[in-house]
Amino acid sequence: HLEIRSMASKTPVGFIGLGNMGSPMAKNLLKHGYPVIATDVFPESCKELQDEGAQILDSPAEVADKADRIITMLPSSPNVIEVYTGPNGILKKVKKGTLLIDSSTIDPSVSKEMALAAEKMGAVFMDAPVSGGVGAASLAKLTFMVGGVEEEYTAAQELLTCMGANVVYCGQVGTGQAAKICNNMLLAIGMIGTAETMNLGIRLGLDPKLLAQILNMSSGRCWSSDSYNPVPGVMEGVPSGNNYQGGFGTTLMAKDLGLAQHTATNTKTPVPLGSLAHQIYRVMCARGYANKDFSSVFQFLREQEEEPEKKGD
Amino acid sequence: HLEIRSMASKTPVGFIGLGNMGSPMAKNLLKHGYPVIATDVFPESCKELQDEGAQILDSPAEVADKADRIITMLPSSPNVIEVYTGPNGILKKVKKGTLLIDSSTIDPSVSKEMALAAEKMGAVFMDAPVSGGVGAASLAKLTFMVGGVEEEYTAAQELLTCMGANVVYCGQVGTGQAAKICNNMLLAIGMIGTAETMNLGIRLGLDPKLLAQILNMSSGRCWSSDSYNPVPGVMEGVPSGNNYQGGFGTTLMAKDLGLAQHTATNTKTPVPLGSLAHQIYRVMCARGYANKDFSSVFQFLREQEEEPEKKGD
Amino acid sequence: HLEIRSMASKTPVGFIGLGNMGSPMAKNLLKHGYPVIATDVFPESCKELQDEGAQILDSPAEVADKADRIITMLPSSPNVIEVYTGPNGILKKVKKGTLLIDSSTIDPSVSKEMALAAEKMGAVFMDAPVSGGVGAASLAKLTFMVGGVEEEYTAAQELLTCMGANVVYCGQVGTGQAAKICNNMLLAIGMIGTAETMNLGIRLGLDPKLLAQILNMSSGRCWSSDSYNPVPGVMEGVPSGNNYQGGFGTTLMAKDLGLAQHTATNTKTPVPLGSLAHQIYRVMCARGYANKDFSSVFQFLREQEEEPEKKGD
Amino acid sequence: HLEIRSMASKTPVGFIGLGNMGSPMAKNLLKHGYPVIATDVFPESCKELQDEGAQILDSPAEVADKADRIITMLPSSPNVIEVYTGPNGILKKVKKGTLLIDSSTIDPSVSKEMALAAEKMGAVFMDAPVSGGVGAASLAKLTFMVGGVEEEYTAAQELLTCMGANVVYCGQVGTGQAAKICNNMLLAIGMIGTAETMNLGIRLGLDPKLLAQILNMSSGRCWSSDSYNPVPGVMEGVPSGNNYQGGFGTTLMAKDLGLAQHTATNTKTPVPLGSLAHQIYRVMCARGYANKDFSSVFQFLREQEEEPEKKGD
Repeated sequence: HLEIRSMASKTPVGFIGLGNMGSPMAKNLLKHGYPVIATDVFPESCKELQDEGAQILDSPAEVADKADRIITMLPSSPNVIEVYTGPNGILKKVKKGTLLIDSSTIDPSVSKEMALAAEKMGAVFMDAPVSGGVGAASLAKLTFMVGGVEEEYTAAQELLTCMGANVVYCGQVGTGQAAKICNNMLLAIGMIGTAETMNLGIRLGLDPKLLAQILNMSSGRCWSSDSYNPVPGVMEGVPSGNNYQGGFGTTLMAKDLGLAQHTATNTKTPVPLGSLAHQIYRVMCARGYANKDFSSVFQFLREQEEEPEKKGD
Repeated sequence: HLEIRSMASKTPVGFIGLGNMGSPMAKNLLKHGYPVIATDVFPESCKELQDEGAQILDSPAEVADKADRIITMLPSSPNVIEVYTGPNGILKKVKKGTLLIDSSTIDPSVSKEMALAAEKMGAVFMDAPVSGGVGAASLAKLTFMVGGVEEEYTAAQELLTCMGANVVYCGQVGTGQAAKICNNMLLAIGMIGTAETMNLGIRLGLDPKLLAQILNMSSGRCWSSDSYNPVPGVMEGVPSGNNYQGGFGTTLMAKDLGLAQHTATNTKTPVPLGSLAHQIYRVMCARGYANKDFSSVFQFLREQEEEPEKKGD
Repeated sequence: HLEIRSMASKTPVGFIGLGNMGSPMAKNLLKHGYPVIATDVFPESCKELQDEGAQILDSPAEVADKADRIITMLPSSPNVIEVYTGPNGILKKVKKGTLLIDSSTIDPSVSKEMALAAEKMGAVFMDAPVSGGVGAASLAKLTFMVGGVEEEYTAAQELLTCMGANVVYCGQVGTGQAAKICNNMLLAIGMIGTAETMNLGIRLGLDPKLLAQILNMSSGRCWSSDSYNPVPGVMEGVPSGNNYQGGFGTTLMAKDLGLAQHTATNTKTPVPLGSLAHQIYRVMCARGYANKDFSSVFQFLREQEEEPEKKGD
Repeated sequence: HLEIRSMASKTPVGFIGLGNMGSPMAKNLLKHGYPVIATDVFPESCKELQDEGAQILDSPAEVADKADRIITMLPSSPNVIEVYTGPNGILKKVKKGTLLIDSSTIDPSVSKEMALAAEKMGAVFMDAPVSGGVGAASLAKLTFMVGGVEEEYTAAQELLTCMGANVVYCGQVGTGQAAKICNNMLLAIGMIGTAETMNLGIRLGLDPKLLAQILNMSSGRCWSSDSYNPVPGVMEGVPSGNNYQGGFGTTLMAKDLGLAQHTATNTKTPVPLGSLAHQIYRVMCARGYANKDFSSVFQFLREQEEEPEKKGD
């Protein structure tokens, strides 16, 4: 079946989930000449893509009936379960040999379940979560981390390269999710660590730009210190220079850290800093930082106002 | 006075503290043709340097009587206080215009106190802690982070370049310490974060080398993931490949994190991850990891043995 | 249907899950004159209860066919899902009006799912996790925390009082689990807090018994300080006095804290100390403390041996 | 000398530090018929006590010249060092045999230094920090935790019982501070733990009053859950019922936790939860909670507003 799909490379591609990320991804498939058959629970999202030339159907099942390559891009695990195994889900009408690529960021154990369910129907499921935001999605500069049977990787790659700049094969089903979750957990740790370190240095009398320079030529160096510094004025072109607007929202980081916690708990892996990072972003969501870039943790940790210390006890 | 010191550049240099670090540093001064007048509480350390051509005196006060440039390299704040302000301390006999350079890693507030005390005697105190271990000390490849009056920096630099490859001016007195403490705090956070992330990824089925590659080309990248990976087998020439021997010991990291905590508490700066990193290295010291390289936190967090889970409650 | 069940109070009770906890619980039902119809995946467990007079069947479905009141006591969420909704599960043959009481400690969201699935079959599901270990199970001194429709509470209470000393009604389905999870999370926090506080006080020169007395008459007081002190020699009759044997194992505490994390993450509730407590018990499991009482965290945090601090860097 | 002091029990008592706590404490000594000779850096504080009948002098040294029993009540370690060993400090004019009682909450290592310095002058120093706030100080209901030579304890007790309801002897110099610091660290852990547990339970559908009841009859019980519950509406007469006004301020708790960190770091004691508690109160100070009661951590951790989760990445 693989060969048939490959030869007929410009046959329709199904796309389910036309949100902030899914919509520009689907458009990039259209740009590369793939007919797109799509669906989404929000009619407006469908309308917009229809105007770009896509065919819109009513349910994932109907998409599965028409396309033998389907990409899904959904907010969270329950949505993925519904779209694949629900009453109008893909697996109700999926054809043998269909290639299913899920780009949602979800629990890898759910990816494995979906893969098993797909296998029972003779279809192939791969997880391919992305790194990069709405901007990268529009410019087809996403990074895809792909998990699934190695023989199907080439077929997946053909489509993913239309939407991203990097496609990395990570191993068996679920390892794409694992790689994404791991990266984002370490990213969060590095960001909070950078924020508190910069804050401490400033309090101790160091110039923030000089401190960033010193860290970046030393063993404290990390992506958050050298490419996305959270202190306003240290770097240009990053959210810290724009009141923490744009970028990668605190809510989304909190969600990914929640996934990291779930997988760590399920595999009994101690992740003390990852766990504390999760809690910090959770508190930030509760304190009004939900929609700011995740580098706003620097602002969250700064002293808000001088409070006089009282005498006594 | 500065000019007089500069012109007489090969006049004797005092050196106090001939431990694992101080001894090779003093030897590098000798190699550069500086007469060295030294002292240490351990006679054996003195004997060894004497054989290399140094003159040995009985106390810091006596060294101060003979040299107008003095370097100190001591284990911790109380030692520094004793060597400078104790009954046989440097300041008892220090000459006006003497340049005092302290390369110990200590609380920046102690550096400031010493600078004030030195100023009262007409001397100049600079803090210049190092990054790099015994190996870098021997090869004169240390990095010095220097705090103190800017006009004296050139004079300090002349000596420090004999012992190190990089000399960075950080600002007023205490900022050298601040830069070192900040770097090491972020280093510890990055290392523990890398260790728990690699561990989680492995548990989720990722190949450790592949995971390291993915992190290092993504936003999770940090010095601990790309230059000092804590997972045995991922990189060569790092302590993780040698049963965590050599490198930078857990006890020393715990000490530096303790300093970071002190300064953060004193300046009321929240450092949640730095604080937890300190606690983790503290527990590791208590559980037998004191003398292993600090990347052994990977081993500390790994499952020791399979334990069967009991039924019930 | 409630009335019919109540009147026929000595009609058979089903019991599924005959582990360390379930077995003595089922025996207590037998002691109170209830015929018991039981099953378990381990034949030996069944054999033992058969010798005490219980009828043994092959599957949960068969038990459901014979009994209209069923108690389940299983290790974790997946087991509960299998026993209720699996191919030979209770719900395959459950009779209308059957009362299903689950005493397992699981994710409250799974309890809610089971309740919904039971309701579709006309049955009633309640969650009733226990506090107290194997000893309390044998002596019928367990505490049951019960969630479910209030009208059915009396019927549940009739059976639960045969196996426990306290039965507390907590609210809608899932709140029994919630109460148990909340209690155990706060318990873990109090225990680790007590352990580190006692350790710090001892290091500062306080006599441990005196410190415990002072805490227990002050605002630091908690159950772990006044009823289960983790420091050997402070109290009698607790695991700390017996090399941390018996009591509530670290693995079980880690499991409950994992549930707390899952529910906190799912409800986006920040639980910073609960989260760190989870990580600490997770590391303890990895470092050989899995089968010791959870108060052994005191031992885990104590210095293992004196390590000399090295000079330098 | 002890006997002479005891016989002359209504001879003047020195009092240094007339802040929110010191002022009512000194008044209680006056009420008990002790002549009080006092001083403070703020003239208004002195004026107020003068109106009550105290004699006011210009410096600690002058007080020491006139009184052979002196009580000090100061905000922090540097103040204590200044008042005892500064140029106009107590020790400049202290008489042999004088009893010095310091009720400030400071680093126990500073208490030990002061005791040594006092001993050199032939005086006796004891640390006697208090538990209880301004209200308890006015009503003479403070608890004193006393460290120092046992033979002098009776003499100290005579004065302390005029100002407090409980006086506890803790051991050698510094152990009074140690006991206070330990209690407050465990208190902070219990409070944050209670706040996050109550919050989680409420999110899981439990009634807060019922949850508090269940915890208080179970192993989760602690002073913060049963005597100072942080959830508005659960208890009466506590700050949570009064918008977290009054009580024990977050800034003061952060200060005590900072002391706990210093002593833990200095004694190399791992205190993971105490350390995180410190950080949480530190962040709260930075986010506007500085002057609220420390139970306001419940409010800090609650969701501030609903934030919609975005689709994608």
